[in-house]
Amino acid sequence: MRIAELGGEFALIKRLTSESRDPAVIKGVGDDCAVVEYTQDKYLLITVDMMVEDDHFSLAWHTPFQVGRKLMESNVSDILATGGSPKWAFLSLSLKTDTTVEFMEELYRGIYDSADRHEVSLIGGDTTHGSEMTLSLTVIGEIDKSMLRLRSDAIPGDFICVTGTLGKSEAGLRLLKRGVKDGYVQGHLEPHCRTREEAIAIARYAHAMIDVSDGLGSEVRHICEESGTGARIDWERIPISNDTLQAAQILKEEPQEYALYGGEDFELVFTIPPENIAKLKEEFSDFTVVGKILSKSEGYYLLKGGSVAAVRGGYDHFAS
Amino acid sequence: MRIAELGGEFALIKRLTSESRDPAVIKGVGDDCAVVEYTQDKYLLITVDMMVEDDHFSLAWHTPFQVGRKLMESNVSDILATGGSPKWAFLSLSLKTDTTVEFMEELYRGIYDSADRHEVSLIGGDTTHGSEMTLSLTVIGEIDKSMLRLRSDAIPGDFICVTGTLGKSEAGLRLLKRGVKDGYVQGHLEPHCRTREEAIAIARYAHAMIDVSDGLGSEVRHICEESGTGARIDWERIPISNDTLQAAQILKEEPQEYALYGGEDFELVFTIPPENIAKLKEEFSDFTVVGKILSKSEGYYLLKGGSVAAVRGGYDHFAS
Repeated sequence: MRIAELGGEFALIKRLTSESRDPAVIKGVGDDCAVVEYTQDKYLLITVDMMVEDDHFSLAWHTPFQVGRKLMESNVSDILATGGSPKWAFLSLSLKTDTTVEFMEELYRGIYDSADRHEVSLIGGDTTHGSEMTLSLTVIGEIDKSMLRLRSDAIPGDFICVTGTLGKSEAGLRLLKRGVKDGYVQGHLEPHCRTREEAIAIARYAHAMIDVSDGLGSEVRHICEESGTGARIDWERIPISNDTLQAAQILKEEPQEYALYGGEDFELVFTIPPENIAKLKEEFSDFTVVGKILSKSEGYYLLKGGSVAAVRGGYDHFAS
Repeated sequence: MRIAELGGEFALIKRLTSESRDPAVIKGVGDDCAVVEYTQDKYLLITVDMMVEDDHFSLAWHTPFQVGRKLMESNVSDILATGGSPKWAFLSLSLKTDTTVEFMEELYRGIYDSADRHEVSLIGGDTTHGSEMTLSLTVIGEIDKSMLRLRSDAIPGDFICVTGTLGKSEAGLRLLKRGVKDGYVQGHLEPHCRTREEAIAIARYAHAMIDVSDGLGSEVRHICEESGTGARIDWERIPISNDTLQAAQILKEEPQEYALYGGEDFELVFTIPPENIAKLKEEFSDFTVVGKILSKSEGYYLLKGGSVAAVRGGYDHFAS
């Protein structure tokens, strides 16, 4: 059976993995990070992300500096999405044999640029070779036990919020595919995740949290599945930057589609009780309410122009 | 500049990485594992290994079960080589799109077979696709602070010992390359690392420790470089199994060459003060003295048939 027939990568992982019997494992497969016991007051957080040339990045568009930066930002984003602080990183690399030392210096400059921004130390890894470039980064972080926010913590009545604007990365990718090399493509080439200070401020008031790796539609679906809830996303409220808006005009497409079904914006999606919105605004205000957590029986849907619409699936590496 | 011109993968990593300024980092890049502060009495150990199809394994020879097992054994071996105990594993995978669910089930069966043997929980990962199969495993373990053994702990006068027998994996690989598919090829297809009980027994009496990933010659060189010592390896004392001996006879080669320059036996190499040998024998006896740690000025060499010979480099993924 092909993986696509089974239902893609998430279905595959569900089938192959089993719950850990180790009582120190608080959360295993199925969230942004694994969560395990650490000290009396803290959990340890562990996340792993893999990037493959021509799938997650293209050397025709990305400089090696941008590849390195994106790899670190995407992993740090997973740690921040639990409310945690990243600490240590481990890089394994499969390189083509003709890779130059200069290329590697730029790649590492990008990794360190992001690592320094987030106060992460790169302290281990493995280097080997293959016929395409593949990078896998492990980031370990920590979090105060009381501050842990998971996908499974949403409660009906919560507002659904997103930080910043969405669809930037997808808009840039679509322009790049059409041969446009400058202007509105930075969102794809140089995504920034949030800072730990911002994530901690949100975690203080939020219930569930996740980062945008596969599009808002997919992330809210994860929250609903893990929390046992439904949700409504208000199409008109999805925050879109002027750059993304202009890119969509060039491409004659709807930018909300990028936000819902494009990936890699590395913004945070969180659910928050309405009464906490004002308190969060005092500490951090760069977010927008885009919907509401409903009961499971109410379903998961999109409200667009006053009508109910279905939320399609997010990006899947094995979708047929 | 090509990586081979710089001096291969170890030279590359040395050039690109820098020491961490985080005081919680006890040992970063440059040993089998990174070592960081954990609880008052324990360190956390982290190791990452990447395997690429047709470089680290061949699906013409290895079953998916064997690929999965080898990946876990090679990582656990790095944890054991410090004297530590593995706890949690994280798998990132890049798969070809035509990979079947049945293949993945066998791969995971191999991973879990080894994980269960070593009491490791697989609790996270990432799955994506690429044009060749690439696997990266992160294993996290722990160790009592007083028991940590590093490559850098050898002292002149120590005996150099190895567990079990060496050259098994290289002998099997060479037979497989000649089209032999059974008999003495198991050492390559199904390498076993040692158990945590054995590693802990050794750690109690040893100074430096490392596992055999790239051949005895390369591992002892790492010990010398990190400890600031020289060393002598006695060619005639290198333990070779009957299977490896017979494989070498078929191939008309010297099995000690496999031991010195072949990789992936996942046995342990350790240095131990002579007076501790008898004490260790009472707890664990499957090891052989193969040489001695010397002062740096005495150099690093091989004693073969009473004559001094040079130790060549070990396996390097970017050697020209």
